[in-house]
Amino acid sequence: MAVYTILTDEDLETVRIAFGLGEINVIKGIAEGVQNTNYYVEAGGERHILTIYEKMVDVSDLPFFLGATEMAAKLGLPTARPIRTQSGEITLQIAGKTCSVCTFLNGISPRNPNATQAKSAGAALAKLHLALADSGLNRSNDLGPNAWPVLWDKCKLGAEQLETGVGKAIEADLADFAQYWPKDLPSGFIHADLFPDNVLFLGNEVSGLIDFYFAATDFFAYDLAVMLNAWCFLPLGREFDLTKGRALIAGYESVRKLSDAECAAIPILARGAALRFFLTRMMDWSRPDDGSIVTKKDPREYSARLAFHRAAKSIMDYGRV
Amino acid sequence: MAVYTILTDEDLETVRIAFGLGEINVIKGIAEGVQNTNYYVEAGGERHILTIYEKMVDVSDLPFFLGATEMAAKLGLPTARPIRTQSGEITLQIAGKTCSVCTFLNGISPRNPNATQAKSAGAALAKLHLALADSGLNRSNDLGPNAWPVLWDKCKLGAEQLETGVGKAIEADLADFAQYWPKDLPSGFIHADLFPDNVLFLGNEVSGLIDFYFAATDFFAYDLAVMLNAWCFLPLGREFDLTKGRALIAGYESVRKLSDAECAAIPILARGAALRFFLTRMMDWSRPDDGSIVTKKDPREYSARLAFHRAAKSIMDYGRV
Repeated sequence: MAVYTILTDEDLETVRIAFGLGEINVIKGIAEGVQNTNYYVEAGGERHILTIYEKMVDVSDLPFFLGATEMAAKLGLPTARPIRTQSGEITLQIAGKTCSVCTFLNGISPRNPNATQAKSAGAALAKLHLALADSGLNRSNDLGPNAWPVLWDKCKLGAEQLETGVGKAIEADLADFAQYWPKDLPSGFIHADLFPDNVLFLGNEVSGLIDFYFAATDFFAYDLAVMLNAWCFLPLGREFDLTKGRALIAGYESVRKLSDAECAAIPILARGAALRFFLTRMMDWSRPDDGSIVTKKDPREYSARLAFHRAAKSIMDYGRV
Repeated sequence: MAVYTILTDEDLETVRIAFGLGEINVIKGIAEGVQNTNYYVEAGGERHILTIYEKMVDVSDLPFFLGATEMAAKLGLPTARPIRTQSGEITLQIAGKTCSVCTFLNGISPRNPNATQAKSAGAALAKLHLALADSGLNRSNDLGPNAWPVLWDKCKLGAEQLETGVGKAIEADLADFAQYWPKDLPSGFIHADLFPDNVLFLGNEVSGLIDFYFAATDFFAYDLAVMLNAWCFLPLGREFDLTKGRALIAGYESVRKLSDAECAAIPILARGAALRFFLTRMMDWSRPDDGSIVTKKDPREYSARLAFHRAAKSIMDYGRV
């Protein structure tokens, strides 16, 4: 939530010309996302977001991330459309970094979305899955189950310090995942990080899906499991909000029906998703404060959710009727 | 340059209703200023800046700061117009803090303004002086010459550490100010901080004067002396850019002619202004890093400028012909 890269007047003019923008009449650094520098840019009467990628994004993945949002926008989904440079590129080098310019999306991210919004967001996720199913876009999920034992090794000492006794349960989770993680669920392009922060609404309607920087190829139902974690728990606890869970799943299934195998897998997928966010938050938590992350998020929020998922028996525990 | 206060959905709705805004369709935290939290808010088709005042602003001064920008806007100057609440107040209490909502101004702040822009900005300053001369707005300048010996006592050890030998020259400056600081120049409302950051342009025309949070009652020529420091030096040195200085003064005098006494006072006023920014930067520099100031500005930039002003003989050294 900060501006890391300050552009000179000359850099800005280079960007403007390369992307074929009109005269710039507004530029404001905005506190959007924690990883990149973002500017709101009005030029020639059009509104844009200029993103400068900082060290946490692997720029070789940008054609995948930006290609996905471009393709989804073309198919009518509410995603940002990257502007291509005059020479047809989706990114540009500026100030020694890589940047992109996308169309601006209206809408606000509610901090505490209601059930109707959860339902709309679930439907939007399913539309994204269907729209990009035949896209040919592929990227392995480097924060998927194979990564978790590696991350756990790096942060388990810190985790135990933060929360005594957490390690044993997590090692049991990892053993379960090694043995029981699904192998053949329907898969394709997933957003993998569709938190309320990354969905814009006008009223209760979705007006934007943003921040594709964790997108990958993986199980569709895992993407829904990420959302069950991110949208449906009461703040700071293990208490699942069944009304929101029901709305989210119903919204998803209003567009794409879950198979029996997907339904059966929801508890383990949700447990895996909770562990993924526990682990990455733990990594951030342990990192010395270099000013790059303004607000570290508490990993314990996810260890509480893990406890819920361990006890869950079926998708009915998440509100599906 | 950060967002310190996060509003809940309920806070935001309270703000919207209190200020009589339409439905909100965009809200983005923006990296504007170093002291306050600012949000870009689009509501009911109108663009606004929502400012939440953090601890560095004395809220009892807000009626003065916001009243000045309101009055200037009514007189046709390019300043933000504060929206008043339904009950006629210029500020609102929210999340335990004070906030305001102002109309949004188009334009960009050039990092390295050209001479034509300096001329426009000089003219805009003079228009502001004339417009508010009879406003009845009064606030003593708490960062004026009476404050400097006090600030110097607090930071002189740090200053000597940062730059060996700087102390002796500054103590001579303070002695000069005690003896020779002007007593009776034309005075009234001054902005007191009109750096290029605080002026918006569309092309070479001024489209906005912002950030009135150091405004006070003081000598008009001191306000021009602040600008000579902030607009007319080459980066990181003591070298004065005569072309820009000439343009700035000519722009100012195209609207309001300087008296002989004001012209004669320019070197000492410019020296005082340089010391004022040296001292406040030094205070920030010495302060432990609590995350509230992302980029500390180097005080030595202003000790170099002090050396220029000490050697200056007359306003001709600043480009006036």
